[in-house]
Amino acid sequence: MKLVVMKFGGTSVGSIDKINNVANIVEKELNDKKLIVVLSAMSGVTNKMQEYIDEIESNEIIENDLILTSGEAVSVGLLSAILKKRNIKSIPLLGWQIPIITDSNYQKAKILNIDKNRIDQFLKNYDVIVVAGFQGVNIDGNITSLGRGGSDTTAVAVAAAVDADRCDIYTDVDGVYTTDPNLEPKAKKINKLAFEEMLEMSSTGAKVLHTRSVELAMKNNLTLQVLSSITKQSGTFVVDENKLIEKEIVSGVSYSNNESKLTLSGIADKPGISATIFGLLANNNINVDMIVQNTSQDGITANITFTVPNSEIHNAKKLIEENKKLIDFKSIETDTNISKISVIGMGMMSQSGVAKKMFTTLADNSINILAISTSEIKISVLIDKKFTKIAVKSLHDAYNLGSK
Amino acid sequence: MKLVVMKFGGTSVGSIDKINNVANIVEKELNDKKLIVVLSAMSGVTNKMQEYIDEIESNEIIENDLILTSGEAVSVGLLSAILKKRNIKSIPLLGWQIPIITDSNYQKAKILNIDKNRIDQFLKNYDVIVVAGFQGVNIDGNITSLGRGGSDTTAVAVAAAVDADRCDIYTDVDGVYTTDPNLEPKAKKINKLAFEEMLEMSSTGAKVLHTRSVELAMKNNLTLQVLSSITKQSGTFVVDENKLIEKEIVSGVSYSNNESKLTLSGIADKPGISATIFGLLANNNINVDMIVQNTSQDGITANITFTVPNSEIHNAKKLIEENKKLIDFKSIETDTNISKISVIGMGMMSQSGVAKKMFTTLADNSINILAISTSEIKISVLIDKKFTKIAVKSLHDAYNLGSK
Repeated sequence: MKLVVMKFGGTSVGSIDKINNVANIVEKELNDKKLIVVLSAMSGVTNKMQEYIDEIESNEIIENDLILTSGEAVSVGLLSAILKKRNIKSIPLLGWQIPIITDSNYQKAKILNIDKNRIDQFLKNYDVIVVAGFQGVNIDGNITSLGRGGSDTTAVAVAAAVDADRCDIYTDVDGVYTTDPNLEPKAKKINKLAFEEMLEMSSTGAKVLHTRSVELAMKNNLTLQVLSSITKQSGTFVVDENKLIEKEIVSGVSYSNNESKLTLSGIADKPGISATIFGLLANNNINVDMIVQNTSQDGITANITFTVPNSEIHNAKKLIEENKKLIDFKSIETDTNISKISVIGMGMMSQSGVAKKMFTTLADNSINILAISTSEIKISVLIDKKFTKIAVKSLHDAYNLGSK
Repeated sequence: MKLVVMKFGGTSVGSIDKINNVANIVEKELNDKKLIVVLSAMSGVTNKMQEYIDEIESNEIIENDLILTSGEAVSVGLLSAILKKRNIKSIPLLGWQIPIITDSNYQKAKILNIDKNRIDQFLKNYDVIVVAGFQGVNIDGNITSLGRGGSDTTAVAVAAAVDADRCDIYTDVDGVYTTDPNLEPKAKKINKLAFEEMLEMSSTGAKVLHTRSVELAMKNNLTLQVLSSITKQSGTFVVDENKLIEKEIVSGVSYSNNESKLTLSGIADKPGISATIFGLLANNNINVDMIVQNTSQDGITANITFTVPNSEIHNAKKLIEENKKLIDFKSIETDTNISKISVIGMGMMSQSGVAKKMFTTLADNSINILAISTSEIKISVLIDKKFTKIAVKSLHDAYNLGSK
C-alpha cells in the first residue's frame, strides 16, 4: 500500500476552520493510501511561548525547548479528533511517543534516529498517524526542538525512515516560483526541480523549504512536493536530478538582502593571510559567504572583500580590528546596503554562456557587480541593494523564465 | 534532609509576575530542604483547551487528554528557568518523564505508580524538581489527565511515593475555614483538622481540596497544609486524627446546593423495594447521597426521599418513571430548590448533644428539616435553599465557631 507523508505548517492549522480544511485534504488523499501527517503548532502559539521565554530572559536550554514544543500537542490532538469523528482510524503522537531521537543541541537539535518498527506498528493499527513536528527527545529523556522551520525536517526524516513514496509539504504558496512573485508578477510556478537547485534557492533567498529538510530529502532520494493547502492544485516536485528529463538551463532567479559586505584594503600580499582572516572568523562562528580577493594597483598589497550575515557584521568588524596587527591591513570598510542576486539551474553545467548572459544583462542595466561567486549550478553576484528589483526582473526576462 | 512537596494551582502561576512570586516562596522554603514543586497550567489555559475540544465536539478520549494536558509544560518550564537564573539547581518534568503511571480512565485517570527511584535520582542531582500536575501516562504510552483539581492529587501521590515530610497545597485562600467566609464573615481559619473532617468538608461543599487527594493523604498518613501563596502565613494542617491533641466537637459548618431531591410516594411497602430503586440508579451511574424512608399514614405504603446531583435529576426521574411497574409507586415529585447543611467534627463521636443542638437551632429559626443523614463525624440536613444563609450563620454561632 502506498504511504505518503504530508506536512502542514502553523498557518495551515491556525484555527479550527483551517484544521477542518486540513482534515478535508487528508480525507481526500487517504483513499488508497496510508498517511503520516506532520503538523506545526497553531500559528502564533510558538511565538507566544518565545515571548514568555524572552520576558524571563531565560537561557535555560532544557526549559526553553520544553516550553517551545508545548503547542504541537494541541494541533495534532485536534486534527486526530476531527479525523476520528469522520470514522478515519487515526492516532496523535508527540515526538517522544514515537520516539524521534535527537542529539542534545537544544533549540536546533538534529534527528539521530526514528524507530521504523514503532511507526510500522502504528500504521498496522491506524490509517493516519498525526505526528507533532519540530520536536524530539534526547538520550536524557528531555524534549528538544529542531529550530524554526523544523517541522519540514520532521516530515522528511519520518518519510525517509519509513521509506515513504512521497513527502508533501503544504504551505501558503502553491509551489516554488522562478522568482519572488511579489517582485516579478510574471514569475511562474516550477513543476519540477532538482534537490541541488532547491538547496541553492533556499540558501539564496527563496524561503519555501527549510534547508536542512532538502538536504535530508536529497540524501535519502525522497521526492518532495511543495503545494498549497488552499488551491489544492499540484505543486512543485523536488526530485533527484536523474528524474529530470529536461534540465532547464536556468530554473530560477533568487535574491537575498540578508548579508553585508566587508572590504579590507592594503593587506600585505603574502601567503596565508586569507587563512588567518577566515580562520579567525570561523573560530568565532561567523559564517562567511562570498569572498573576492584581488591585488591592488600598487602590485604589493591586496584587497579582500567578503560577506557575512547582517547580524554578524558588527562582530566581524570588531574582531578584525582587534587583530589589526596580526592581519596587517590598512583600512576596513563595511557596506550593509547590498543585495545578492543568484541565477540557478542544473543545465548550467553543460551549457556555456549562462554567466556571460548574466553579466551582459546587468551591464545593459548599468548595474555594477561588486563580487561574484559561482558553483556548478549557480552564479551569484553582489550588487547595490537599490538595483535588486531591476536586476531580478531583467534576468528573469533574459533567461525567458516568465509565463508567456 | 527534609523533603517537602509544594503545589501551586493555576491562579498562582497565571502570569510571569505570579510565577516569580512562586519562585520567591520556593527559594525561601528551600533553605534546609529538598523540594518537589507541582504546578497546574497557567490559569485560563486548560479552559481554552476545553473550548477547542467543545468546538470540534470531540469525544475522543486520547486526543482530549493530549490537548488538555498541554499547558503544564509552559508553567513548569517557566518556573524551573526562573529558579535556575537564581542559581537554584532545578529540573522541569512532565508526567511521562517521571513517569507517573495511571490507569486508562482518560479524563479522570487514577495514579497507579510513581517511580520512587527515578525521583530519588533527580533529587540527588537537583535541589528542586518541578513537576507537571494533572497528568500522567498509561500503559499504552498515551497521556492521561486526572480530572479537574487533579494537580492536588499529583502532589499528594508524589509526596506519598517519596515519603515526603509534608505536602503544602498553596491556593488563593489562607486555609480551611469554619464555614464559607463569604456567607459568614465571622468564619475563622482552622489550624488543624483530621483527614476525615477534611473529607467531609470537601464532599459537603468546601471546595478547598480535591477529595481524591485527601483520601490519598489519609491512606498514606501524609500531613497536608492548605495555605495562601499571597499572605505567606501558616495555613490549615490536615493530619491524622491521632495527631489532634484537642478534638473540637464541631470543626466546621458546610453547605452544598449541588443536589436535588426526589420523593416517591405510595410505594408498596414490601422487602426489596429499596434495593430495586437504588440498584437501578447505581446501574445507571447516578450517585445517590441522602436517603430517607418512612411509612405513610395508611400503614400500608411507604414514601422514599433521596438526593442526586443536580445534573442527574432529569435522568433519575426519567429512569424511575420508565420503571414505574417494577417499582410500583403512586407518584414522583422533584425539588431542586434545596440545600444540604452539614456540621462536621471529630469530637462528635464521644460527645452527645451535638445533633440535638443542631435540630434545636434550626427549629428556633423556623427552618424545616426535609431529611437527615449522619455519620460518626457529620450530621447533614436537607432544608429549603432560601434558609441556607440563616442556617449556616446560626449553627456557626451555636457551636461557638466564630472568631471572638
